[in-house]
Amino acid sequence: MGIVVQKYGGSSLADADAVKRVARRIVEVKKAGHEVVVAVSAMGDSTDELLDLAHGVSPLPPAREMDMLLTAGERISMALVAMAISDLGFTARSFTGSQAGVITDSVHGKAKIIDVTPGRITTALGEGHIVIVAGFQGVSADTKEITTLGRGGTDTTAVALAAALEADVCEIYTDVDGVFTADPRIVRSARKLGKVSYEEMLELAACGAKILHLRCVEYGRRNNIPIHVRSSFSQLQGTWVVDDPAEGGTMEQPIIAGVAHDRSEAKITVVGVPDKVGEAARIFEALAEAQTNLDMIVQNVSAAATSLTDISFTLPRTDGQTAMAALARIQAEVGYEKLLYDDKIGKVSLIGAGMRSHPGITSKFFGALASAGVNIDMISTSEIRISVIVDEAQVDQAVQSAHSAFDLDATEVEAVVYGGSGR
Amino acid sequence: MGIVVQKYGGSSLADADAVKRVARRIVEVKKAGHEVVVAVSAMGDSTDELLDLAHGVSPLPPAREMDMLLTAGERISMALVAMAISDLGFTARSFTGSQAGVITDSVHGKAKIIDVTPGRITTALGEGHIVIVAGFQGVSADTKEITTLGRGGTDTTAVALAAALEADVCEIYTDVDGVFTADPRIVRSARKLGKVSYEEMLELAACGAKILHLRCVEYGRRNNIPIHVRSSFSQLQGTWVVDDPAEGGTMEQPIIAGVAHDRSEAKITVVGVPDKVGEAARIFEALAEAQTNLDMIVQNVSAAATSLTDISFTLPRTDGQTAMAALARIQAEVGYEKLLYDDKIGKVSLIGAGMRSHPGITSKFFGALASAGVNIDMISTSEIRISVIVDEAQVDQAVQSAHSAFDLDATEVEAVVYGGSGR
Repeated sequence: MGIVVQKYGGSSLADADAVKRVARRIVEVKKAGHEVVVAVSAMGDSTDELLDLAHGVSPLPPAREMDMLLTAGERISMALVAMAISDLGFTARSFTGSQAGVITDSVHGKAKIIDVTPGRITTALGEGHIVIVAGFQGVSADTKEITTLGRGGTDTTAVALAAALEADVCEIYTDVDGVFTADPRIVRSARKLGKVSYEEMLELAACGAKILHLRCVEYGRRNNIPIHVRSSFSQLQGTWVVDDPAEGGTMEQPIIAGVAHDRSEAKITVVGVPDKVGEAARIFEALAEAQTNLDMIVQNVSAAATSLTDISFTLPRTDGQTAMAALARIQAEVGYEKLLYDDKIGKVSLIGAGMRSHPGITSKFFGALASAGVNIDMISTSEIRISVIVDEAQVDQAVQSAHSAFDLDATEVEAVVYGGSGR
Repeated sequence: MGIVVQKYGGSSLADADAVKRVARRIVEVKKAGHEVVVAVSAMGDSTDELLDLAHGVSPLPPAREMDMLLTAGERISMALVAMAISDLGFTARSFTGSQAGVITDSVHGKAKIIDVTPGRITTALGEGHIVIVAGFQGVSADTKEITTLGRGGTDTTAVALAAALEADVCEIYTDVDGVFTADPRIVRSARKLGKVSYEEMLELAACGAKILHLRCVEYGRRNNIPIHVRSSFSQLQGTWVVDDPAEGGTMEQPIIAGVAHDRSEAKITVVGVPDKVGEAARIFEALAEAQTNLDMIVQNVSAAATSLTDISFTLPRTDGQTAMAALARIQAEVGYEKLLYDDKIGKVSLIGAGMRSHPGITSKFFGALASAGVNIDMISTSEIRISVIVDEAQVDQAVQSAHSAFDLDATEVEAVVYGGSGR
């Protein structure tokens, strides 16, 4: 009899039949005696269509108006889901992000949720209605302007609602059956994880696993909301993202949760930096001013003969040109020799909370890569993660060899991909 | 330096190029030193597309959710217009009906505006922005629900904003050059009216002239807002709807403003009604209970021999089946003989404030119809209007003969139809 919050992405709402299927799922939960609150994304490709419209009238549309435009997408899908529910004999009330009390900061296009005041939702639940909320959007606290939350916004909306409503669970419906030990398109024998911890899921998301967005997991972790990632196309149990996966289970938690990969980064090397105090700081200051997000950073020890060092770092490819330009502007000042840019790289990460208590993981990982003939270019580690940069063409081999080395392979194929991919 | 309110319908916003053209027109007015507030409809056929989506998920969608869905249409167009303005180097702020302070009653699908509190609009104007408002929508005063205003809603939004902002003028942009003395598709020599009074425009609108909606004109009349109906496809002056068209002009106002026609009505005759007190009342009570809107009503004197009378009335064809069913249910009670239903009728109306002071209009009108071989079925008059019901097939002849008889024909063709028709 608790509150269940669900999230359906665009691929689960591609057309009228999909909307009706989602409505039936929602009604089942209501019939089972729960109060149901649902966050929805825009239907299928409708966000792309709105973007096309915008770029048809202006090459650089103002962010405020872009948010006004894009929020129409979720408005349409939430009304349709409410209608489909009504057609099944239940009543639903749809609410925009603003009506649902999703309060954000004022950064159009990538606003952060700063509060949720779900008064209208609790009133509607109290009246026996199913509540549908437009995901991905809110209203700014100070200016009362409509904002959008950026990538993964509807996942974040769902978890934020679950936290504000003290829901029993936040179910994230997607087009795969859950979180897998690796991308099933690369590792056919990837296994679905029954449970995974917030911290592991955070690392997986940060390292390229696209199933849940970082902000959504972080919001769940902070508020201790169990997140159930599952498919809207099947009735299978998915993956539970929880605080302590071992809790209540008899099985010991596996050492490694999974292998993630990411092909969206590029590497920049600043060659021949004078090895003096403050030179590195000046470089990273310039990159910060240019609003580039760096990931891994490596500085080699300087060759004693020259007192010159090389600094390498990775960053999203989309930030590549900005970063190169920012560095070029300070070449005379810093006195480095040259810049190298490489976007034919990939990152492969091994993630598992069990690493903390099990030595030897690194050597086993590197050994597996060596056996597969994969050369390691850069290394970065956290307490529960080891990431390496490799040649983009060797990403698949690297993922497969690591997956096998840590006995993650399932005995039969578990992964089914049902549709496209939503936002 | 006053405030100009403009309204652009769906046919003026059919695609990206149309949106850009509208943006250029808006910017011209801003450049001329005015503050500009613009009400927009949904683009082209987008409302029909949303209706199709709704009926794809539910045969009878709840009115609340239908309003939530349809209001997405204006949201999209207002954001695009604001973007296109920004691309011309001016700043625009778009506002939903709710944000613009359009307060309505709670009747979803055909809400009435009860107040306009344009605080955010005046603030934005004060900051130098052009303001774009989503037409056709508002928020209910008591329940804070999103509502739509029904047919002609964006015209009404524009006039209501003009009244609240004490604007100098409300410009209604459409796909014809103004209000004509008759439908140019029927009378090629129809003349564009330079000015027309509110009361004449009200009668024209009520009698089938589709260019302005009744509610919009009524709102303008009550608040004495000059309405300028003109084409978004030309730079021509259109028709001014004002309190006193003769004011400031040297020319005497013409006796007849125009000839309107309407093919959307049907006629029902209740044959053989006992001529007793209360029988007619019972019939119209039943029709009122069935929520049918009656137009003309005629009761013949009863034949002395039988004490039976016939009652005929006209009503929108869309209400025809409902009315027939309501009347059938009371046949035994009232004791009438039978019902006749005729939807092959048309209404032709002669409208002019000059009728008041010029006798002989009726005989001249009927004489013209007789010469054209048009038979009159029913007659109804007001102080400034004479309407007749004729055979649907004879509507064109009736309009043409009346138009000529009252010397309304222009010496050359003035009317150009540019596009489709918006809401």
